[in-house]
Amino acid sequence: MKLASPWAPRLAPGDEPPFERLAGALADDIAAGLIGPGDRLPAHRDLAWRLGIGVGTVTKAYARLEQRGLVRSLHGRGMFVAGTSTMGTGSINLGINAPPQMLSDRLLQATLAILAKRLDAETFGAYSHPAGQPEHRRLIARWLAGRGVDAEPDRTLLTHGAQQALAIALAMACPPGTRLLTEALTYPGALLVARQAGLEIVGLAMDEEGLTTDALAEALGADHGQRRVLYVTPTLHNPTTATMSAERRQAVARLCHAHDVIIIEDDVYGIFAPPGVRPLASLAPERTFHVAGLSKALSPGLRMGALVVPPDCVAEAEARLQASCTTASALQGEIMRIWLTDGTAEAVASSIRADAVRRSALAAERLPKQAGLKVNGGFHAWLPMATEAADRFVARAALRGVALMPARAAMADPSAPEGGVRISLGAPTIAQLGQALDILSDLFRPGRPVLV
Amino acid sequence: MKLASPWAPRLAPGDEPPFERLAGALADDIAAGLIGPGDRLPAHRDLAWRLGIGVGTVTKAYARLEQRGLVRSLHGRGMFVAGTSTMGTGSINLGINAPPQMLSDRLLQATLAILAKRLDAETFGAYSHPAGQPEHRRLIARWLAGRGVDAEPDRTLLTHGAQQALAIALAMACPPGTRLLTEALTYPGALLVARQAGLEIVGLAMDEEGLTTDALAEALGADHGQRRVLYVTPTLHNPTTATMSAERRQAVARLCHAHDVIIIEDDVYGIFAPPGVRPLASLAPERTFHVAGLSKALSPGLRMGALVVPPDCVAEAEARLQASCTTASALQGEIMRIWLTDGTAEAVASSIRADAVRRSALAAERLPKQAGLKVNGGFHAWLPMATEAADRFVARAALRGVALMPARAAMADPSAPEGGVRISLGAPTIAQLGQALDILSDLFRPGRPVLV
Repeated sequence: MKLASPWAPRLAPGDEPPFERLAGALADDIAAGLIGPGDRLPAHRDLAWRLGIGVGTVTKAYARLEQRGLVRSLHGRGMFVAGTSTMGTGSINLGINAPPQMLSDRLLQATLAILAKRLDAETFGAYSHPAGQPEHRRLIARWLAGRGVDAEPDRTLLTHGAQQALAIALAMACPPGTRLLTEALTYPGALLVARQAGLEIVGLAMDEEGLTTDALAEALGADHGQRRVLYVTPTLHNPTTATMSAERRQAVARLCHAHDVIIIEDDVYGIFAPPGVRPLASLAPERTFHVAGLSKALSPGLRMGALVVPPDCVAEAEARLQASCTTASALQGEIMRIWLTDGTAEAVASSIRADAVRRSALAAERLPKQAGLKVNGGFHAWLPMATEAADRFVARAALRGVALMPARAAMADPSAPEGGVRISLGAPTIAQLGQALDILSDLFRPGRPVLV
Repeated sequence: MKLASPWAPRLAPGDEPPFERLAGALADDIAAGLIGPGDRLPAHRDLAWRLGIGVGTVTKAYARLEQRGLVRSLHGRGMFVAGTSTMGTGSINLGINAPPQMLSDRLLQATLAILAKRLDAETFGAYSHPAGQPEHRRLIARWLAGRGVDAEPDRTLLTHGAQQALAIALAMACPPGTRLLTEALTYPGALLVARQAGLEIVGLAMDEEGLTTDALAEALGADHGQRRVLYVTPTLHNPTTATMSAERRQAVARLCHAHDVIIIEDDVYGIFAPPGVRPLASLAPERTFHVAGLSKALSPGLRMGALVVPPDCVAEAEARLQASCTTASALQGEIMRIWLTDGTAEAVASSIRADAVRRSALAAERLPKQAGLKVNGGFHAWLPMATEAADRFVARAALRGVALMPARAAMADPSAPEGGVRISLGAPTIAQLGQALDILSDLFRPGRPVLV
């Protein structure tokens, strides 16, 4: 006996051929979570009969979905919804927020050749301090100081990427029962950690500069008898690209000071900060956990993040880091050392900034004016739209071979009506990016049912 | 005004010169936690007056303690107890359980040279799966299978060292309120995570094979209405070196099955398992989180651990790993790949085993018979003794320039009367090890007050 399919058969509205309307309806419902990974699709014959279409139409629609990686045929068992990735083979990935690749093979090879001469087996094989070797901490603290962060080496811990820094900051600042205040849309990796910890997450209203002072003041004014912590991305907010002015930052720091609230500042896009604007970590160093990393500024391959903690939190932060890791990677620390001291890091960060401007301009040029695109010179852009329309947009884009981040993943309240679509510009080649943007632009054409 | 010292002045009993008895008393009280890091020591003149000794004697004792890194003079402020490390400059470290260094500079350099040719910038710079690339997972699963672990690649996650694997296993298996059952003495890194999570820790009685079936049956029989989880190190238990027989393992697996209890198996010393003895992960794969790593078998520098999870826990384990890390290190994965495929890993593991046997034999030969040394062919040995005597032994050894792990760190109940001293044999050179063992042996000489 075959299992029944949980999918309620339908065709998407519109004037496209039936196989596209069938594929579109399935893609929409997968994106909306109405059917999920591992769910069976109806048998070809059954579906054709129920929708009054030909079996060949079903075959064509399923083939289209399979080609895009949304469904998978299991021999002898039928057709099933595929795993969580909406990116099929051959698709262009605008879903992952990787920086443009600015390291050349030649540079990497030269670095590893230097490393081969410099790193002896004893240094490599030693258990080092969990927060990194003093020299490595000093170097990343200096790099952060160059970006305006008040980072003494003693308060700066090296981590296995920014995500680990974020997880430690959240664990330290947010005991069970904490209300985590954050932008209504924010980084999915932070929401993941907060939800695993069972925290109450409160999304705050945003404007062009990110979270508004009014929303923050209101949230802090209401006393629910709970500890409150603010998680905020002041520079090149992910996904909306909003960046706080100097005045907004000062107002946020003042409010947090007045209500004695800890701040977790996500500054992984710090290289995109406008000149003269200071991070919260230097406006309120006594209460700010500052999360940074070299993944966006240099390369995700280095797996090197940093956490700057308030002065009285150093010992606990080190203990938490030790409990999760025991020891930092000397190998990756040495590569970082080479790049931070020989000028590679600054050169790569500048190239990434310049390339991000070029990619942002391309997005602004290719997508229609009425789409309301937000770009801010970084390597992600934002298309605000109603949440349901955003789900359909992501599904349709996947069907046309363009992978986007499911918008709900970034929402403090995934059921809120206002969402959008993040378009990551960094991962593909410029040519692929142009091609993908043309496909997205095409989804806005009148007559396309996607924005209905 | 100077702060008063919290230390109650005394001389240790014995027939040594007064400066040694003063230094000994201070070292004992530091080890016992009666005075801690940052505490002020009495002013020279004051101490001399109160103990009826000369100021020169105090100076000599303080100098001795400072030389060993136990106290630190702060200019103009006086003398203070130093940070947590009991290892001063120039001391021999038998405190850290690092494997003997078996990687040569030449091997490491050759590996990095291969890596320079093989690793392209795109692979290096990509965000990979948080649990590692499929090829890397397949390789470590095969390595574990060679040690008898039932490790399908799909259930095997790569981690940033075994400690991260352990932290994730504990977080998954132990929701708040869990009673963590473990050996009365166990790995301090596990106790650290469990204490941070606020778990109740219950130490079970041990014999020559590790935790006893009787103690486990009793703990599982008593129903406190709490979830129970077993954390256990069946092979080369740290610190006692006990290794479970095949029969004991089967009995433990049966008991856990009967009471539906999750097992976290710490198998970081798996290369020291006797032939034919299977890990719990293959006796009870449906309920065992298996923690392994390459730090002890190959080199801590690789920072590569593995977590094999029960079949129904894969998705949650990946989500937890992603929340703490986002992406595995392609760089370190590639080094692992080279070593696991070109025979380096097996060769190094064999050398470590052979060297550990040699070091164990040296410890058995140099330490007096009556000391009751436990050695089991690994690179740590165990001296059982009363907890207070162990504290004094560690303090006296530190004073003579030999760093040992504070025994209480390994105790499920740090106030239990029966403890001991772990002697790690792997880190120093053989010559240094011999020298350090002679110093420890000397502490057993009749007339020495250490074991009083």
